[in-house]
Amino acid sequence: MNYPEQYSLYVDLVEKTLERLLPEQEDLCPKETGVIPAHLCESMRYSLLAGGKRVRPVLLLAACDMLAGSTEQGEVSAAALEMIHTYSLIHDDLPGMDDDDYRRGRLTNHKVYGVGHAILAGDGLLNYAYECMLADALRWKDNLENHVKAAQAIANRSGVAGMIAGQSLDLLSEHMEPDAQRLGYIHMHKTADLLTAPLIAAAYLCGADEEKMQALSRFGACVGLAFQIDDDLLDIEGDAAQLGKQTGMDAQRGKMTWPSLVGVDAAKARSRELWDEALAALDVFGDAAWFMRGFAQQLRERKK
Amino acid sequence: MNYPEQYSLYVDLVEKTLERLLPEQEDLCPKETGVIPAHLCESMRYSLLAGGKRVRPVLLLAACDMLAGSTEQGEVSAAALEMIHTYSLIHDDLPGMDDDDYRRGRLTNHKVYGVGHAILAGDGLLNYAYECMLADALRWKDNLENHVKAAQAIANRSGVAGMIAGQSLDLLSEHMEPDAQRLGYIHMHKTADLLTAPLIAAAYLCGADEEKMQALSRFGACVGLAFQIDDDLLDIEGDAAQLGKQTGMDAQRGKMTWPSLVGVDAAKARSRELWDEALAALDVFGDAAWFMRGFAQQLRERKK
Repeated sequence: MNYPEQYSLYVDLVEKTLERLLPEQEDLCPKETGVIPAHLCESMRYSLLAGGKRVRPVLLLAACDMLAGSTEQGEVSAAALEMIHTYSLIHDDLPGMDDDDYRRGRLTNHKVYGVGHAILAGDGLLNYAYECMLADALRWKDNLENHVKAAQAIANRSGVAGMIAGQSLDLLSEHMEPDAQRLGYIHMHKTADLLTAPLIAAAYLCGADEEKMQALSRFGACVGLAFQIDDDLLDIEGDAAQLGKQTGMDAQRGKMTWPSLVGVDAAKARSRELWDEALAALDVFGDAAWFMRGFAQQLRERKK
Repeated sequence: MNYPEQYSLYVDLVEKTLERLLPEQEDLCPKETGVIPAHLCESMRYSLLAGGKRVRPVLLLAACDMLAGSTEQGEVSAAALEMIHTYSLIHDDLPGMDDDDYRRGRLTNHKVYGVGHAILAGDGLLNYAYECMLADALRWKDNLENHVKAAQAIANRSGVAGMIAGQSLDLLSEHMEPDAQRLGYIHMHKTADLLTAPLIAAAYLCGADEEKMQALSRFGACVGLAFQIDDDLLDIEGDAAQLGKQTGMDAQRGKMTWPSLVGVDAAKARSRELWDEALAALDVFGDAAWFMRGFAQQLRERKK
């Protein structure tokens, strides 16, 4: 099995699980209890099943394999994490937040279903993530405590001291002077927390020891921060190429980024350091980390 | 102990627990992990600690007492349920939903913190409800499974086949012709589900048997539906008194209500039936239901 084949297998499992957990509904006003009304379901599916690389759930499944656990234990948590990621995108796109009309070439949720329903679709996906994880935890009676801890690992990194905290600081920091502490906070929580969440969740599901838990945490944080710095660098290169400039700093429109704070060269150096540290963190897993190394490599070499 | 004294005791416990779970923060950009940034925390506290009758958490605590359980087992679930109720109000008030500037005489969350932050404050409270319940479940190792089931009872009734489903149908049904099935669906899910949730959660926490579980479920559903019908009747009486009319039906501005569907007299009869059925459901608990009976009585006799 090579890397792209393995990646496809994980993505297939994610898509299959999402489809199983949130199948299409026909009834606008269901008679039976426990059934999602058709229109609400459709608005959730529109954003959840829009494709994408499924980075976070793939990380969770790959970590289960790396820890010699079973992906079956992790598939619902992986799907739930994708629901959380998706709700955050729907709400991010709303007027009052980023106010975007398009995401990956498709109309955003509120452009199709209206603002009211987009708010509900987001709330619905967030709540449903927990409905799914709680139901799943109760299915694994022998591993119940670990499933609850995995759900908690996801909840804490998605929440008000995690991703939502990062979004809040990001919103407050628009058009402010760059500040290293605040920028580090935003990157760590807005981006890295949701990449660390699947790794720590998998560690609980598979009963990993403290050393491996720490290594996964370090890997996730380094990948998340490097990813964010590279993203900002790619934006600058894109803008510079487009505008024929030496540097695209002024095209950053006041957005606080690592390159605007320390300069492009220092940002590139910092990114290299972080990727090296991410790979070093995987040493403890030996050959079992082959997919995770490929994953880091792939992410590092990406283009816009 | 009489009814008002007992109610105050429950409310005090709810307020104390909310304050403990979500204390004020000073740091806008916290250095330690697991700490909520000050501004986000303030926006959540603004709506969560705005007073109110705390109907849902009081129901949960009272049900624990009625089932001879401990309110200590239920206090975090009760607080979490109030977080869920509060997030739904914050999001309901947003432009694109009800677009309200005031709630109970205070500015709505988005009028104080802006739409973007109000969305995040709502998302934050919803996610934090699960963070709190999951952490609490892990504290009660001997009763872990029941705590997970209680969290699930709350999640399912708050979610996409529960409260959110009711909100979605309500949003879709504005200015539509009344229809008994749809109206019943909206009332059951938008209002009654979040009143049944605390009772079923308490039943799991206290290990209640199937008969008592059923009785609590019936009590919650009847109270929720009666409450909603009375609310619509009070609106009509208020409008009629204000406008000096015999009936306030035309003042309903196209909102689908039970009185507009079956007429005022039939709505009053239906409300009486439901309250009687609610009280009858409590018979199985004997004298232990004294507070729950008082609660139903109080709710039944309320004025706008």
